[in-house]
Amino acid sequence: MGEFELINHYFASAACAQGGEGVVLGIGDDCALLSLPPGEQLAVSTDTLVAGVHFPDACDPGLLGQRSLAVAASDLAAMGATAIGFTLALTLPEVGPAWLQAYANGLSRMAHRCRMSLVGGDTTRGPLSITITVFGRVPAGQALRRSGARPGDVLCVGGPLGNAAGALPLVLGQRQAPAEQAEPLLNHYWAPMPQLTLGQWLRGSATAALDISDGLLADCGHIAKASGVALQVNLAQVPVSPALQAFLGHDAALQAALTGGDDYVLAFTLPPEALAPLASLGFIEVHVIGRVLEGQGVTLLDRDGQDITPVQRGYQHFRETP
Amino acid sequence: MGEFELINHYFASAACAQGGEGVVLGIGDDCALLSLPPGEQLAVSTDTLVAGVHFPDACDPGLLGQRSLAVAASDLAAMGATAIGFTLALTLPEVGPAWLQAYANGLSRMAHRCRMSLVGGDTTRGPLSITITVFGRVPAGQALRRSGARPGDVLCVGGPLGNAAGALPLVLGQRQAPAEQAEPLLNHYWAPMPQLTLGQWLRGSATAALDISDGLLADCGHIAKASGVALQVNLAQVPVSPALQAFLGHDAALQAALTGGDDYVLAFTLPPEALAPLASLGFIEVHVIGRVLEGQGVTLLDRDGQDITPVQRGYQHFRETP
Repeated sequence: MGEFELINHYFASAACAQGGEGVVLGIGDDCALLSLPPGEQLAVSTDTLVAGVHFPDACDPGLLGQRSLAVAASDLAAMGATAIGFTLALTLPEVGPAWLQAYANGLSRMAHRCRMSLVGGDTTRGPLSITITVFGRVPAGQALRRSGARPGDVLCVGGPLGNAAGALPLVLGQRQAPAEQAEPLLNHYWAPMPQLTLGQWLRGSATAALDISDGLLADCGHIAKASGVALQVNLAQVPVSPALQAFLGHDAALQAALTGGDDYVLAFTLPPEALAPLASLGFIEVHVIGRVLEGQGVTLLDRDGQDITPVQRGYQHFRETP
Repeated sequence: MGEFELINHYFASAACAQGGEGVVLGIGDDCALLSLPPGEQLAVSTDTLVAGVHFPDACDPGLLGQRSLAVAASDLAAMGATAIGFTLALTLPEVGPAWLQAYANGLSRMAHRCRMSLVGGDTTRGPLSITITVFGRVPAGQALRRSGARPGDVLCVGGPLGNAAGALPLVLGQRQAPAEQAEPLLNHYWAPMPQLTLGQWLRGSATAALDISDGLLADCGHIAKASGVALQVNLAQVPVSPALQAFLGHDAALQAALTGGDDYVLAFTLPPEALAPLASLGFIEVHVIGRVLEGQGVTLLDRDGQDITPVQRGYQHFRETP
């Protein structure tokens, strides 16, 4: 089976997940062709997941399919973009049809949920690795960048944090938990839903945004640096899920929420007066967790207003590279 | 050093190779932003190169940098697109600054030659692998597809074939050759210049096009199938370089030209009357090698018009997958 035939066979469902809007030509030629409505720009991001580094070698291929696309599409949410499509570069050792079919099914599930189509790809033989490049569209000038936070803004997140870090010992088989704790955590790890609707709503409202992948404090540091401001996080306002709290206990759950990676929940700043319309639209999972000040860096305050900022420990690749 | 800092440090030259046209926002946020002129569409393609599969583990990183971008950008040439930019997903084991700097220098050289900018990427730790996704622009409806070849068209290629296949034993250190043979072959292997100008000129003129990566006969088969026609190749007209002929001898050189992969030379069909303007524009490396007929499949004719079609042996990943 040739490359296109392979993609067509296993990935047919993912290739038509979006309904065709914006996709002029999909899989099967030298390039895919995308179109943009007048006045819109293309948002592009690339993410790689490597077996043994970003996921366990022996994990469920269907869950991996979901997660690999979700992680990449989250960057579109962070820019306030509407998803269009994605390319898949899949490097595989000797892997059978059952693996491919399950992976494709998981990928397709997430593609349908995000309304984006597989438009092209490359399949190669080698150590298992997945690179997905996502494409979205956003009205010119309205993309959510990291650089616009202003003193006086409030700092918000789009949902409870730390679930993915909490799930990790379960994913790795190092710990067990009752189903009512394990299921929500594992579900967040394997299917972190890209907050595309929230991101789109924040266009013209948020002054800065990103998706939390390195950990809350590290990612707040990225906004602070890009915007030239200080961010103040109130520990008492940082949301953690009941499942995480039950599984790890209160202190460790908060630690996971502050420094755990892979949450793919949006963090954003906006003027306080923009909060009411946000709430009225039913985004009940938006939590105010702090504010933007003049200065630089990120500070963490306890319930009494004491500065308890830890040394930041967000996950970053190549942090040891000179 | 963080991911953005790493990219900024080593890849700064590649990031500004294109002069900014079409790139609204480059490296450093959740997504890059690209814009298109009114009436144009975006062309997208992804290619992965895996160490030990697509290049020797210990190869020169500067040459690898050149080649990794050239191979991907060739798909833009095959669509008649003008290059805009690319993302780089680089997976590295423990690799030092010298390797990264040399790789980035080679990548940047090719980026400048193709006038395209690095707009984003992901660096991860793992077995050495490179996935590049390229972006170009093409006027709506004018992209060169594989499906438009018509009986009566002539079949052309954009230069001599087989050089990359001929270079392979040199690349792998299995054979040696005098410099006047080795240099042109190795240069073609490591820096196969994407025929972007030729592809752009062919817009509105060629009826079908692709870049030869699987081998001439296999790729002609792709055009024949997509267009619903037969392609006839005249062996006597298939161009081989003097270096390849000297290195391999006449018969093996032709064999490399017919079935060797990795040439990244354009193959295209067009009405005979479009040939004269092509020649007048100075594309002296365009060779007519056959014609389009009613029917299906690819036939190869010798100097006397005898059908000598071999079993096709173009390189294809996963051809053994059921």
